[in-house]
Amino acid sequence: MYTTKIEPRIGETDGLRHINNTVLPIWFERARNKIFKIFVPNFELTYKKWNLIMVHSEFNYLKQIYYGYDVEVRTYISKIGKTSFTIFQEAWQNGQLRANGKCVLVYFNFIKEESVVIPKDIREKLKEHYITEEELEKNNKNEIKENINKVEELDYFNLDK
Amino acid sequence: MYTTKIEPRIGETDGLRHINNTVLPIWFERARNKIFKIFVPNFELTYKKWNLIMVHSEFNYLKQIYYGYDVEVRTYISKIGKTSFTIFQEAWQNGQLRANGKCVLVYFNFIKEESVVIPKDIREKLKEHYITEEELEKNNKNEIKENINKVEELDYFNLDK
Amino acid sequence: MYTTKIEPRIGETDGLRHINNTVLPIWFERARNKIFKIFVPNFELTYKKWNLIMVHSEFNYLKQIYYGYDVEVRTYISKIGKTSFTIFQEAWQNGQLRANGKCVLVYFNFIKEESVVIPKDIREKLKEHYITEEELEKNNKNEIKENINKVEELDYFNLDK
Amino acid sequence: MYTTKIEPRIGETDGLRHINNTVLPIWFERARNKIFKIFVPNFELTYKKWNLIMVHSEFNYLKQIYYGYDVEVRTYISKIGKTSFTIFQEAWQNGQLRANGKCVLVYFNFIKEESVVIPKDIREKLKEHYITEEELEKNNKNEIKENINKVEELDYFNLDK
Repeated sequence: MYTTKIEPRIGETDGLRHINNTVLPIWFERARNKIFKIFVPNFELTYKKWNLIMVHSEFNYLKQIYYGYDVEVRTYISKIGKTSFTIFQEAWQNGQLRANGKCVLVYFNFIKEESVVIPKDIREKLKEHYITEEELEKNNKNEIKENINKVEELDYFNLDK
Repeated sequence: MYTTKIEPRIGETDGLRHINNTVLPIWFERARNKIFKIFVPNFELTYKKWNLIMVHSEFNYLKQIYYGYDVEVRTYISKIGKTSFTIFQEAWQNGQLRANGKCVLVYFNFIKEESVVIPKDIREKLKEHYITEEELEKNNKNEIKENINKVEELDYFNLDK
Repeated sequence: MYTTKIEPRIGETDGLRHINNTVLPIWFERARNKIFKIFVPNFELTYKKWNLIMVHSEFNYLKQIYYGYDVEVRTYISKIGKTSFTIFQEAWQNGQLRANGKCVLVYFNFIKEESVVIPKDIREKLKEHYITEEELEKNNKNEIKENINKVEELDYFNLDK
Repeated sequence: MYTTKIEPRIGETDGLRHINNTVLPIWFERARNKIFKIFVPNFELTYKKWNLIMVHSEFNYLKQIYYGYDVEVRTYISKIGKTSFTIFQEAWQNGQLRANGKCVLVYFNFIKEESVVIPKDIREKLKEHYITEEELEKNNKNEIKENINKVEELDYFNLDK
């Protein structure tokens, strides 16, 4: 697991004064750079060198995320297959898990347009970030519980009354 | 079902010269306006009147989408629950299904912060767009097959060699 | 001049319940597709064929733009130089001019990394959209005045009190 | 002056394999948070408390910005008027000034919909970041010159040949 700090923008809130749902995929993409570096160390964005393509993504919006407080994105690997793997990501704010999601990336040859078996050395590096979703959920429960009374935030619903 | 025409922007492509995966949630949000109108006819974005909140979204990237050709987003309702419902959406380009996805929205009272039972008149309007995912998949197969030889597109992988 | 209809998204509003300032460059880029077609008829996004690069852009936020009403983007050419030209764009909503802006694009050879003289046939096509900023401002004044009493919009400042 | 580190996303590049022009306003907005804090210390996004509105912005694209290298955004105040002020911002990458821009914000009462005189204590805090554009340009020239031979980047134009 590694973490990425995100400082929300005003423009990422919407009229409901929370972070809009379309923003999460963007934050999560930013936080995947360290994984991309494992596959393409110099980040070369050409068909010859780039070798990852996304086939699926999903997101759970658990609690509202607000402007004015940093967000910590935590990035894990939750599955390593033959030619594909799954990145699991969470957005934490003020000690609470606000959203999570995962995406499936295929190790891909853009020139031949076909998937390729993930080599052993890359596989080893992915394993450093590996955790099962079940294990993660268990860990999170404790952390959320410990932090629950520390959360102090603007209460927009009442401010607006 | 209803359709929404999207004209891709250059800025929506990425270095791999296809539409970036973070763009799909944005296009699909734009295409949900007609559904929002059923729930909030004057589109009033206040806690008193707005009544929908997203709890889940997911996306399948089936084929690459390119700049330079219009995209047709098709919007369906694939499930109607007691307090929530599922919107199913597809992105078609040049007669081919390129991506699809769905999101679960909860009928929500923002002031009380609780879900509410979807009223009967709204339920009726949602039903007008209803189709099961299975039925939809069957219909699509025929359409894709019929169009398969009509697709003429720039072949970026070969252009770049 | 040509027009492009934009249907605002919820995610394009921000916590102040108006369209965020970062959205205007995005709408204006979408509306430039017809100009790009003059320069790159098949929209091929490669260094060999693409031939425009932006060197300057600016935006004036005249009135707030809201979600729930279509926006009409009007695109003009306001200057044609030797190797560069200026696109002038406006965002109209409910008969009122809400924002405008312009950008300078250079006719550019990406391989040699140098500007190129705009050929005569392209110059002719650009002229079809030509108007001076002064002339445009005069025309707009009349149109805005005629429409001023027709504008009926949600008044968020009062709704929120 | 203060600096904000930005880690470019793949989705922020476009088909020309550089950062798209619509991204700069977004990065610059993110980097304005520290200025917003001077005006609205708890970042409360309501009409009662928020007090800034943008009336103008502009951007100069000096050199291409690439994915794979951090960007440093530098934020200055270049003008302090009676009811408005100007924020000047730069994007540096690999020791080179790649883009700059400025925006004019008005100190604004959203309820009364009118501009307000900037109070003395805020004015003092803005002054801490003050520099004239001329002075800044002079400083930058030296820095760019010193760094010019240190820049090592992927050369996409040649990679693609």
